[in-house]
Parts: sequence; structure tokens; C-alpha cells
Amino acid sequence: MKRLRPTSWINNIPAYVPGTSKDTIMKRFGISDPIKLASNENPLGPSPEAIKAIESSKRITHLYPDPDALDLRKAAAAFFGCTPEHIIAGNGSDEIIDFACRAFIEPGDEVIIPETTFSYYRIASLACGAKAVMTDMKDHAIDIDDIEAHLSEKTKAVFIANPNNPTGTCLDSKQILLLADRIPEHVLLVIDEAYAAFVRSQAFKSAVNLVHVHDNIVTIHTLSKSHGLAGLRVGFGIAGSSIMESLYRIKPPFNVNLLALKAGQAALYDLDFLKQTLETTWNGLDYLYAEATRLGLQFVPSQTNFVLINIGTGAEKVYEELLKRGIITRYMASYGLDDYIRVSIGLPSENQAFIKHLEEIL
Amino acid sequence: MKRLRPTSWINNIPAYVPGTSKDTIMKRFGISDPIKLASNENPLGPSPEAIKAIESSKRITHLYPDPDALDLRKAAAAFFGCTPEHIIAGNGSDEIIDFACRAFIEPGDEVIIPETTFSYYRIASLACGAKAVMTDMKDHAIDIDDIEAHLSEKTKAVFIANPNNPTGTCLDSKQILLLADRIPEHVLLVIDEAYAAFVRSQAFKSAVNLVHVHDNIVTIHTLSKSHGLAGLRVGFGIAGSSIMESLYRIKPPFNVNLLALKAGQAALYDLDFLKQTLETTWNGLDYLYAEATRLGLQFVPSQTNFVLINIGTGAEKVYEELLKRGIITRYMASYGLDDYIRVSIGLPSENQAFIKHLEEIL
Repeated sequence: MKRLRPTSWINNIPAYVPGTSKDTIMKRFGISDPIKLASNENPLGPSPEAIKAIESSKRITHLYPDPDALDLRKAAAAFFGCTPEHIIAGNGSDEIIDFACRAFIEPGDEVIIPETTFSYYRIASLACGAKAVMTDMKDHAIDIDDIEAHLSEKTKAVFIANPNNPTGTCLDSKQILLLADRIPEHVLLVIDEAYAAFVRSQAFKSAVNLVHVHDNIVTIHTLSKSHGLAGLRVGFGIAGSSIMESLYRIKPPFNVNLLALKAGQAALYDLDFLKQTLETTWNGLDYLYAEATRLGLQFVPSQTNFVLINIGTGAEKVYEELLKRGIITRYMASYGLDDYIRVSIGLPSENQAFIKHLEEIL
Repeated sequence: MKRLRPTSWINNIPAYVPGTSKDTIMKRFGISDPIKLASNENPLGPSPEAIKAIESSKRITHLYPDPDALDLRKAAAAFFGCTPEHIIAGNGSDEIIDFACRAFIEPGDEVIIPETTFSYYRIASLACGAKAVMTDMKDHAIDIDDIEAHLSEKTKAVFIANPNNPTGTCLDSKQILLLADRIPEHVLLVIDEAYAAFVRSQAFKSAVNLVHVHDNIVTIHTLSKSHGLAGLRVGFGIAGSSIMESLYRIKPPFNVNLLALKAGQAALYDLDFLKQTLETTWNGLDYLYAEATRLGLQFVPSQTNFVLINIGTGAEKVYEELLKRGIITRYMASYGLDDYIRVSIGLPSENQAFIKHLEEIL
């Protein structure tokens, strides 16, 4: 008897490993108020304007959301510097990654992904039956030469995150231009700028303007971090008309929920909150750099709201000991970085608690 | 020069046609408060318990939602009568339809879909490169004999909605058992019960229990209608372990947003609201039946919260005239029902306004 079989490639898809939740730690160690520095969430909470928008829309959640997300896209266009026609909104940027894969990848196509980056690029590509071709990192940064070296007749897409998660490094604008020139026009180049708002390097430049020059580039953006809306799932893709048309064909009609539309729109206009977020993040980074140096620990200077710290051979034990004390960071073995933990920037008191416990443990 | 090409099947995907929004009518005709009876939304609003849950969680929307949606799935398990392991939660039931397609369909597979049903089955199937095989209706109901007649070596999935949207008819439990027996075990049978809560027919039975008998059945559920949460996007799939495993491989980590998790959970336990919803719906249906009869109009008796009314050859004009008067219904030409409009059950005053204007127009 023939049995129901899933697609031939489904078992290649690895599971996504999320950051450990506060709930897990509360239950596992009986800790009442753990500090979560594991998922690069905004320590200030959601934008206050977003909270107000939720409040004023909570009674209309029985209505379907605007399938075009027009008001949200207008706000995003103003924020990212393009026109609404070149923006598509998603249920988090994860969904934009899915759209890009589902619109362009056929089973058997190759997708180039740097070895140490956001794991969802590989998951989403494999879910479409692609073969993931992983490229080497160079000093924790994406190596555009190695990407070029792996281009083949079968390459359909290249994914990069700029700045990169989980390493915090970024490619400067010259390198991005070089990469854009080296990727053939028939290969999709996905540039994920989830952390772009946090960049301090003057050499970085958003690739949004490149979508008007290169018909094969889509940039990806999220309100999860800089705008404090990870829980509501608001992401964007920005691209030229022909990519846009294909992404819209894949988009389900009501993919962005109504409170995400309203809160996202409000948050995009709340520049005060963004300013406060950046100050908190940058001060926190500088504090962690100084403290790591004092403790004799190496770290990877970061253009994001997290930092990769080299703890050495005992990294997993240190991570576990921090958990027991209610400090949730991310152990990086699943990214091939056995000696590292990644810590998100928290409130000053949270950063201090992390350092205090880390120092005691070391 | 080779250009970037989307998948070879993407241009087969038709666009989804949503119900006309209140905003559109307000702008188009300058009407301040139109009555929307076009999208089968709950006229009572969201469950009050859901509103409370949104209120109490609005300040934690900077945190990622629980990727396992465990509390929501526990509430759904209690409501639908199964265990949480057999439930997967989605960003609306649309996403569960997508998961089913993406987990099982390879390009070239055939998917059987009744001619007059929810349009998203066809959209989601074509997005995976499937060929959609449409089967005939019999007196506005799904014809299981015609489904059987279209099974082929290439058939990978069969979609039905029970009760069916947009006709409002339902298959009785004997027909469902017959269909389940006739579909080979290697073909996925998707039974969408989006409107099951509204059924008054004693002959109907939910297919949830069948998932433990047939390894190839998945049932689909939503909180959009009966629980008043269309704006928040909460849907479920229920299936045996092997289908579940495949659906979970496709599920993105944070697909159900945090406020949907909280509000959905609260709404599932709010049985008073559900009772009120059903009373409002059933009284509204009986009122519309009586008034349609009085006006000499035929209609399709409905097991849902909407009713298909045969207006005759002038249906499109009547629909347009209703729009101008601020009454939004759905003209059914895109479903091949040129003489029909579909009207959702509203509040008593909304149903009366619809009839008053309809009578004036006719």
C-alpha cells in the first residue's frame, strides 16, 4: 500500500533553534524574573506610539487587515527612503525571506549562504528544495570573494545579512557595490538589513538605493529590533518592479495582522523612540566592550544590538551557569562558534548584571 | 544577457480577490459608516476576553512570540477535542493551507479542488507548481463522486471546505466518511472546517476524529469568524503524527504573532461569546431567509454565517447599487455565480438595512 509522502526534500530542512525563553528558565530554575539577552529584542519595550496604536485598534480585531498594507508601506517608504510600490510587507522578515525563496527557487537550484549567518536563509531555501552552498567567513565577516568563487550555473540566489547576525560585522558600501557587480543579473541577491539601524560605521550604506540600479537585488528590513516589535511580526522587502511583482504573487492576502499594521505604522514615525533605542544600544555596546576588555575577553566589534564574546573552551559551561543565575544569552555552538556566546544589549542594569555574573563565573 | 526569472509556474497563480473594504467605500462614495457584509466577519466584534488579553499584553510586544504556541494549542485542543501534539497553529488558516501544500506538493502534482469553493486552495496549490483539477458542484454542494472521478496517478491532494464557502452547503458525516474511504492513503485530504461552529444540521460532524483513523487527513480551523479574530490571524491544522511532523518542518519559527497567541487563547475559552455569536448568526439567517422569500428571491440554505442569494441577471448592478448606499456584499461572478451575491450575517440592524435597501433597489 502506497503511503502519503511529503516532498522529497522536506527532511533536509533543519529545525530553527530559537533563543531560550524567560518562561523556560523560570520553570527550569525557579527564577522569578530572568534577564533575556538572547534574541536581540529591544530592551526598552515596544515604541510607546505602537502601544497606543494597539490600544486604539484592539476593538476592531474582528475585521480582516488591509491586504495591501498600504498605510504601513507608506510609513516604511518614508523611513527607508523609497516609494510604497517598491515595498512588500511580511509577517516578520522571515516571511519576506520565504517569499523570495518561493518566488524564485525551483527544486535543485543552488543558493549561496555564508557559513555563519542567520539560520533561516538556509531553512527557507531548503524548504523550496534548493541545495544550500555555504561559503567561508573571513575574520567573522562575510567573504565576498568566497561567494563569487561558489557561483555556478545552478546558482539562483545569494543571501547575505548586512550587518551580519550573529557576528555583528558589516560589509562597507564598496564591498556591497563590488558584490552587486559580481553577482550575475539572473541571480537573486538578497541583502538582509535587519540590524542596519544600529550601524555606527561610516563606511556602511544601506543597499536600498541599489534596487533601482540592479534588477536582481531585494533588501530586507524588520521592525523587530530597532522598533521593538518582535512580537507583532513586521518585516519588509524592497526591490525593483519585476522582483516586486513576483513577491506579490506569492504573498497570501492577509499576511500582516491588523495590530501589526497599526503598531508598525506608528512605530515607524516614532523617531524619538528610535533615537532612545540607538543611544541605549550604543552605550550598552561601549560598556560591554570596556568590561570584556577589563576581563581579558576578546569580542567581535559589532554594528548591531548584540555582541559575540569569546569565552574560550568553557563557553558552554559559562552559558549554562549564566542560565542558572537567570541571565539568558545565546551559546553559539549551533553556528560553529564553540567558544562564543552572543549577548544582546539590554538596559544598563541588565548589562551590568550580565557582567557581574560573568565575572563571578569566570 | 540572462535575466532573473521567477519559478516557471509563478505566473499561473491568480490574485486573491478580497471583499471590498469599508475604507474603499468611504472614499469612493463619501459614505461615513458603511455596513460591511462581505467577508464573513463577526458582527459582534472580537471576543471581549480577547480584547482584555490584547490590553494586558500590549506592553510585551517587543518580545518574540512562543514559537511552539503551546498555550494557544492547549486551548485549541480543549476546544476542538484533541491533544496539543496533533495541532499546529498558523498565521490564519491561510497559512495552514500553505503548509499543507508546501509540505506535500511537488511541481507537476495534481490537486483536486471543487469548482466553487474558497479560492485560496487553488492559489496555494499553484504557488507550489501544482496543476489544479477543478471538479463539478451538484446543487451548490461539493460532489464527492466527481472528486473520485478525477483521481489520477498524479493526484497528491484533495481540498474540500465543509461547510463550503461561498455556497454555505455542507456534506453530512456519511458523505465525509465515504470520501475519506475513497481517497487513497497516499493522497492528502484537506478538510477545511472554517465555518463548522455555525452548522445547525444534525447530519454534520466535524472530521477532527477522523485524523486518528486516516493518516492522510488534515482538518483546518480558524478563529476569524466564530471567535471574531480575523484581524489577528489565528488558524489551526489538526492531523495525525506523520502529517504533523511534515507541517512542523515547514512552519517558520515565529509565525503566530504574540497578540494572536494571547487573544486566541482567551477567545477559545470564551464560550459565552461563542454562544452569543451563534444566536446572532442563526437569528440573522432565519431573518434573511424569511425576507428573501418575501421578496421572491431564491437562496442557498446555509450552514455558515453567510448566505448566497440569487438576484438574477441584474446581480452585478444590484451589488453596485448596494455599494453606493453603503452596504458592502460580495458579487459572486469571480466564483462563476453571475446571478448571485453573498451576504454575511450582520447585527439585526445591519441585516434589516441590507433588506431595506435591497427591496428598494429591486
